[in-house]
Amino acid sequence: MARIVMKFGGTSMAGIERIRRVAQIVKQQADTGNEVAVVVSAMAGDTDRLVNFCREASSLYDAAEYDVVVASGEQVTSGLLSIALQSLGARARSWLGWQMPIRTVEAHSKARIETIDGSALTKAMQGGEIAIIPGFQGISEEGRITTLGRGGSDTSAVAIAAAVKADRCDIYTDVDGVYTTDPRIVTRARKLKTVTFEEMLELASVGAKVLQTRSVGLAMKEGVPIQVLSSFTEDGAPSADDLPGTMIIAEGDMEKEEMERQLITGIAHDKNESKITLTRVPDQPGAVANIFEPLAEAAINVDMIIQNVGREKGETDVTFTVPSADLDLAMQVLEKAQAGIGFNRLIPDTNVAKISVVGVGMKSHAGIASTMFKALADRGVNIQAITTSEIKVSVLIEEDYTELALRVLHTAYGLDAEDAV
Amino acid sequence: MARIVMKFGGTSMAGIERIRRVAQIVKQQADTGNEVAVVVSAMAGDTDRLVNFCREASSLYDAAEYDVVVASGEQVTSGLLSIALQSLGARARSWLGWQMPIRTVEAHSKARIETIDGSALTKAMQGGEIAIIPGFQGISEEGRITTLGRGGSDTSAVAIAAAVKADRCDIYTDVDGVYTTDPRIVTRARKLKTVTFEEMLELASVGAKVLQTRSVGLAMKEGVPIQVLSSFTEDGAPSADDLPGTMIIAEGDMEKEEMERQLITGIAHDKNESKITLTRVPDQPGAVANIFEPLAEAAINVDMIIQNVGREKGETDVTFTVPSADLDLAMQVLEKAQAGIGFNRLIPDTNVAKISVVGVGMKSHAGIASTMFKALADRGVNIQAITTSEIKVSVLIEEDYTELALRVLHTAYGLDAEDAV
Repeated sequence: MARIVMKFGGTSMAGIERIRRVAQIVKQQADTGNEVAVVVSAMAGDTDRLVNFCREASSLYDAAEYDVVVASGEQVTSGLLSIALQSLGARARSWLGWQMPIRTVEAHSKARIETIDGSALTKAMQGGEIAIIPGFQGISEEGRITTLGRGGSDTSAVAIAAAVKADRCDIYTDVDGVYTTDPRIVTRARKLKTVTFEEMLELASVGAKVLQTRSVGLAMKEGVPIQVLSSFTEDGAPSADDLPGTMIIAEGDMEKEEMERQLITGIAHDKNESKITLTRVPDQPGAVANIFEPLAEAAINVDMIIQNVGREKGETDVTFTVPSADLDLAMQVLEKAQAGIGFNRLIPDTNVAKISVVGVGMKSHAGIASTMFKALADRGVNIQAITTSEIKVSVLIEEDYTELALRVLHTAYGLDAEDAV
Repeated sequence: MARIVMKFGGTSMAGIERIRRVAQIVKQQADTGNEVAVVVSAMAGDTDRLVNFCREASSLYDAAEYDVVVASGEQVTSGLLSIALQSLGARARSWLGWQMPIRTVEAHSKARIETIDGSALTKAMQGGEIAIIPGFQGISEEGRITTLGRGGSDTSAVAIAAAVKADRCDIYTDVDGVYTTDPRIVTRARKLKTVTFEEMLELASVGAKVLQTRSVGLAMKEGVPIQVLSSFTEDGAPSADDLPGTMIIAEGDMEKEEMERQLITGIAHDKNESKITLTRVPDQPGAVANIFEPLAEAAINVDMIIQNVGREKGETDVTFTVPSADLDLAMQVLEKAQAGIGFNRLIPDTNVAKISVVGVGMKSHAGIASTMFKALADRGVNIQAITTSEIKVSVLIEEDYTELALRVLHTAYGLDAEDAV
């Protein structure tokens, strides 16, 4: 017998037919003798509808009232799933954020969970009742509804799993697991049986949109194994013995054979970065600080940085990437700081993409990087920048080459599925 | 300076444009220096949408979870009205049922309010903040969401007005007041300046669908003056000096001239009753009890009763009315009890309507009734039954004559507006 937290996203909850299907999956999990809590999202589209109401009511809406409005979407689905489960003969009840309670910081519309009192929930689960919890919401110290920001239901699920000391957190989504790369681009992409928290963090943050990054970080901190699986592909529900999804676990929990499987676990891409180049910056101590200090003050996150030797002696070109959403702000900040920095021209470029290869099995970045350079050069893909971390090598390339680069690298690192179409 | 509770129904809250209009009316009330709390319904159609979700999820849905689902409609509008008010520069915040709290009995989907803690609300209002409260909802002793049944927001508004000791409860609806009769049928119907609680109870219960009956009873008990007015007809908002709606007040608060205005205040009609006749019932003590006891046990509300002398000596015909929704059940109950009662035939008739003339100024029922009989007889309308109460005379007629009877009586009692079209 295990204690399981299951989480279903908006696509799984979109309409009564799908909620009934979710109820069957949950019931089957409970029927194996497991204690079950379920975290639900709002029906797909419902949160957008509610957010738009707030925006129409006022462009400068009060975040506290926004939370009152948008939290209602998950309240609806948690009640409906309870009803659907009861109609299958299961005992179930909804637990709203303020009822447990799920305490968060005051920061409305982007709150962080502080503490969850899991005692009532644990008691109900031990008594054989399925607990249904609306994701994405909590209650502030002041007793008002808070929400965790879009996609926050994954984080709710992991936090609740930690609070009730669950053996596993199953995240049901519209993809059936974590793939070696985006299967819509690379048809030979393979579903991974396991990835480590660290790998998943890198894969999530660089563009594999399976789980909210925050939820993976929390799961790593709390030691909650996550399973990603689909509520759509299987006809029956997945059982405890036959797990078709991807397990996200600590590196120490990984089996030896898994560890040694390959150097690279997956390849991610991110088209949401832009490049800025400053030409003819004085090549002297402090010059680079003059560039990045004003950006940091404006809370702009700088990612890759390259410094080239300029055409004139004593000068250099500096290139770096920022999130595309911050590009305009970054340009303004730098223009204002031109005198202090002393650059000649400021050149923005949105036509770039970042490709990242990720793997805890990575022993030498040099080997990984040389495979990368060779494979990309053979197909005429130019590398504009490169960065590495403990378990990742990223390159910046022209955006139009993204799909080509993914396919080339997927083959180069031996990730292609043998039986794929 | 006064303390006012304002209530807006679903039609007034249907969409952001209308919520903005409501915000203007509320703001104007607050700008006169009054302390203001606002009770809101869900957007028109939204509660139906949520109720249908529950029904689709299970025909035997759990009322506690139903309450979780349907209470979300008012949660949304209370947040949106707060945002709309803030965008006009007013200070406003939403107070959900569990936040005040509004304590109700456990009876989910048809709860009654037990107590309201108005202290936090009063303090906020005294501090110049407009309090926005979702109608229709409360919290049970167990800490779960309850709802008051359809139309419950009127009752919420009156209960909150009592809790904060408001000077007045303004109910904004899609009609602009209480009329002498249904203005869609009688074009010469007049809007009433004042009616007493007792009159309104009779008018509401016999079919003038302006206010939920329960809310009028509560207002009478708590001594809360109600004003019914429209949020649509006026271009600007009504001010405290110029009240265009109908005031519902205690008889003692009515001015002398108002009291003496006329015998009859209004005429209501109700097409939702059906007639049942039992022929040849033994004309002996206890026979009538044998009829009505099984109906009472089945919780069927019997209204008008007439006993005719039958064709045979020692026998009588008994006729009475029940709500049309209970007709089938009443027929089943009576058929089962046929041996005990000893009737010959059981004749249902849905083709009846009840017409009621109401007025606290009524001194002699005889005078009222004779005017009624004469006016109806002159136009060939047959009276099938008659009942009276302290301030009401009701007759049962063939349903097809309803509109004719209303017009005839409206003129006969001198209620016609002089300047009507």
